[in-house]
Amino acid sequence: MMWRRQPTGHAMRRYAPILLALLPATAWTAEESPPAPVTMAQVLAESTPADWRRPSPEDTLYLDIPGGRVVIELAPQFAPEHVANIRTLARQHYWDGLAILRVQDNYVVQWGDPQAGNPERRRSLGEAEPHVPAEFERDVDALAFTPIDSRDAYASQVGFVGGFPAARDPARAKAWMTHCYGLLGAGRDNAADSSNGAELYVVIGHAPRHLDRNITPVGRVLSGIELLSALSRGPAPMGFFEDPAHRIPITSIRLAADLPESKRVHIEVFRTDTPAFQRLVQARRERREDWFADPVGRIELCNVPVPVRLPPTGT
Amino acid sequence: MMWRRQPTGHAMRRYAPILLALLPATAWTAEESPPAPVTMAQVLAESTPADWRRPSPEDTLYLDIPGGRVVIELAPQFAPEHVANIRTLARQHYWDGLAILRVQDNYVVQWGDPQAGNPERRRSLGEAEPHVPAEFERDVDALAFTPIDSRDAYASQVGFVGGFPAARDPARAKAWMTHCYGLLGAGRDNAADSSNGAELYVVIGHAPRHLDRNITPVGRVLSGIELLSALSRGPAPMGFFEDPAHRIPITSIRLAADLPESKRVHIEVFRTDTPAFQRLVQARRERREDWFADPVGRIELCNVPVPVRLPPTGT
Repeated sequence: MMWRRQPTGHAMRRYAPILLALLPATAWTAEESPPAPVTMAQVLAESTPADWRRPSPEDTLYLDIPGGRVVIELAPQFAPEHVANIRTLARQHYWDGLAILRVQDNYVVQWGDPQAGNPERRRSLGEAEPHVPAEFERDVDALAFTPIDSRDAYASQVGFVGGFPAARDPARAKAWMTHCYGLLGAGRDNAADSSNGAELYVVIGHAPRHLDRNITPVGRVLSGIELLSALSRGPAPMGFFEDPAHRIPITSIRLAADLPESKRVHIEVFRTDTPAFQRLVQARRERREDWFADPVGRIELCNVPVPVRLPPTGT
Repeated sequence: MMWRRQPTGHAMRRYAPILLALLPATAWTAEESPPAPVTMAQVLAESTPADWRRPSPEDTLYLDIPGGRVVIELAPQFAPEHVANIRTLARQHYWDGLAILRVQDNYVVQWGDPQAGNPERRRSLGEAEPHVPAEFERDVDALAFTPIDSRDAYASQVGFVGGFPAARDPARAKAWMTHCYGLLGAGRDNAADSSNGAELYVVIGHAPRHLDRNITPVGRVLSGIELLSALSRGPAPMGFFEDPAHRIPITSIRLAADLPESKRVHIEVFRTDTPAFQRLVQARRERREDWFADPVGRIELCNVPVPVRLPPTGT
């Protein structure tokens, strides 16, 4: 219909920056026929329960604000010390009653203690560590990295690690989580090791990949990012709210593990280490939906969706 | 200060996807010293009036919604027939009282006539053409293209054309505007030539570059995009508002040329065809701000800002 004119023809939620897949032409032997072209919708329709995973409750954070709940998956494989601190802070209810301090258009939403810079008035970190090392990148050997075939402006190789978009530098044998839409990171001052996880930000704009290897990524938003990205932008420089009345209060931040089973969100995330995911990436590289005049044939890391779903009630 | 912890250290508005610049090391002869490292703030502080331009009033569109004014620059060099139609529609006040029909997170805001698919009820296009050809790309020779040095996932060469981010394929001698944050495009149905400029969209998320060469780009938002990107997302699939009460009414869309001088926004845009712009791109490639632990050394097209400013009152 005319009024349904669309820039594109797919209905998947695109907020979950996602993941991987090298699907070489040589995956098919000469005797076999390649499979018929598929769309992402087909890949998902044909997926089996084994193609999905439930993030660990110890790695799942619920950010509750007046607009609703944001579900976040923490990434201890990338930032073990920061994630340990974040778990401790959540268990102490550290953020409850603090606020979103900054909403900068095409960039980040950031929250924490507005009095963090004031030793007299700041909230106690309790059992959490005030200082942890910078965790900008990790040894490649410590991570199960699945590359995707993509020319990248910032890294020689890109792909996914356990559902998180990532890059690596074989020459230095290092890998890091990339700043795609939805990344959760630990804000810092000028000193590289000045973050401790108490102040956090989420990317709500075009991937600021220049932050890669300059700051510690700690996770990724799985659902509800539109509750952050649609917030009114802060009027002060860099999107800060100078007027406390304009800040968005944080109702609570909790680890899923600390809530009874009945209060948890049983979100499932499409695995990134499966043949089904390879098909998904290929479907996003070669666009076969009727709408596309040109099938593109290329894909960029931060444009690979990692689908999420809520299982039927009762499962 | 602790509470000022930031993911990055710059205060420029980042919404204006911008521009260019190959700055080869060989720009300096062996006898000269290279200039001291600069930041974008320094480049802008040292800019002269000649580094800025005022878009033509014939190419400037004001989208007024209840939240305020969005200023858009049209790109007749990329889509002459669509832009001619858009001027005609604006002069007829075609969009006044129509609405934003779609807000999809990390993707687009889209507006037009909700009854466009109903021949009985749709608003007349008046003097505008109901059908215009698809204008997905242009002959390279027709455009002044300034390349930037960047590995790009989707195109062999990227750069800027008159302030608009663009890509080109020398083998086919074609160039096109790229889908960076803030791009304005003409929505279409499955038929490639089914757009006419009456239904428009703005990119409000990570660059959906797979739309390049699949749809007609017609311009770019210069200011006020946060009035679109912060709108509540539509609850129906693809961010549509099925309930008319949830749509955002369009107060008016006008060409600057049709308003008296006193009612125009005298916005200035940083030129993309100057040595100053080459310095800006280089400053964004090599990050010298104190905050950066790693100067990056790379840049992606859609992360190059094209600064805008409002001159002091009275000029």
